[in-house]
Amino acid sequence: MLIAVPVTSLEPLKECKEKGADLIELRVDLMESPTVDRALTVLEEAHRLGLGTILTVRSAREGGRDLPNRLELFEKLSPFSDYTDIELTSLDILPQVRNTVLSAGKKLIISYHNFERTPAGWILKETIREARRWGAHIVKIAVKAESYTDVARLLCAGSQEEGEKILIAMGSYGKISRLAAFVFGSVITYAFLGKATAEGQLPLEEMVRLREIFYGRRS
Amino acid sequence: MLIAVPVTSLEPLKECKEKGADLIELRVDLMESPTVDRALTVLEEAHRLGLGTILTVRSAREGGRDLPNRLELFEKLSPFSDYTDIELTSLDILPQVRNTVLSAGKKLIISYHNFERTPAGWILKETIREARRWGAHIVKIAVKAESYTDVARLLCAGSQEEGEKILIAMGSYGKISRLAAFVFGSVITYAFLGKATAEGQLPLEEMVRLREIFYGRRS
Repeated sequence: MLIAVPVTSLEPLKECKEKGADLIELRVDLMESPTVDRALTVLEEAHRLGLGTILTVRSAREGGRDLPNRLELFEKLSPFSDYTDIELTSLDILPQVRNTVLSAGKKLIISYHNFERTPAGWILKETIREARRWGAHIVKIAVKAESYTDVARLLCAGSQEEGEKILIAMGSYGKISRLAAFVFGSVITYAFLGKATAEGQLPLEEMVRLREIFYGRRS
Repeated sequence: MLIAVPVTSLEPLKECKEKGADLIELRVDLMESPTVDRALTVLEEAHRLGLGTILTVRSAREGGRDLPNRLELFEKLSPFSDYTDIELTSLDILPQVRNTVLSAGKKLIISYHNFERTPAGWILKETIREARRWGAHIVKIAVKAESYTDVARLLCAGSQEEGEKILIAMGSYGKISRLAAFVFGSVITYAFLGKATAEGQLPLEEMVRLREIFYGRRS
């Protein structure tokens, strides 16, 4: 299980490394000045420190902010990031972003967010398959859990699909998914430094400690 | 999620209560002198301290010790315990123990242990149904996990069956089940004071802390 910390600037990178993160997720859409140059500086500094990188430019509809040069940011930055995460619903730019990522020999994460609810199990499974057909190395499913049953349904549906996934049940009911999804095939979990970027996230230090307790050298 | 601590004497009861346990599991088969009187003293003291009680006299085959007066112990003690746990494979005494427990208005846990492996999902589900047909209020399934896939299979199979359950994936791969099984319908988890009685168990203090973090006031 790898631990990623969402960041929007250079500032927290050193602390991420020191406290045991494996990856940073650069949320370009949340950067103060979301330029190619500034984003590139963050990716390079992360690599210099030995951190892996996930690049994302999230749209407003999926919890981010719409940027006019979204495609340009993806195309110029993704060759310099280990992973690039793009939403399954961004059909206008998905084929181009995918081609850029694959040509650069990098890994593609295709994600689906639902901030309202956890859809039925068969919908979750179809969503994973759809993302896989678009060429995802890792399929990320982040859905709002309104009960513990929602959490169980997400994890069980996810575990039935082959391949690498990221499974997140958002909200307080889903907090346990941040730690337990690993045994259901989820390969990356997100933790925070400072302030949580999503309800249910755990602080980085706590996540590192819990990974050691529950997964020891195995993960 | 209730937290139970296995005990074999009076001595740890006060500490169990102080550190936040809800229940003690009296393992009569592991008591130094497994007499009705001594066991009764432990049950009474637990209740006096405000702890619930699970009574069990586990057979050698299911991880305990064979006692010649096993049925007598069950019959004389179970009317004084909130829960009585008997193995599904103890068919020789199961009907009598069930009748005693139900006549006394107490709750019956019927358990299945497998210290070797985690059977297929459909076998786990049939086992839960079988125990339910014998009158279990709570069905306990404790199986050895030899991979994370085993853990996921147990939890997903368990979550598909109605009613209260206790789901435990034993061994180091299964450690996360001690905390996460709650969202799959598992109502009691076992923690230890002093020395673990099963591989993968967490210390009581840690379990109480984790329950607060992940389930807060919800559990």
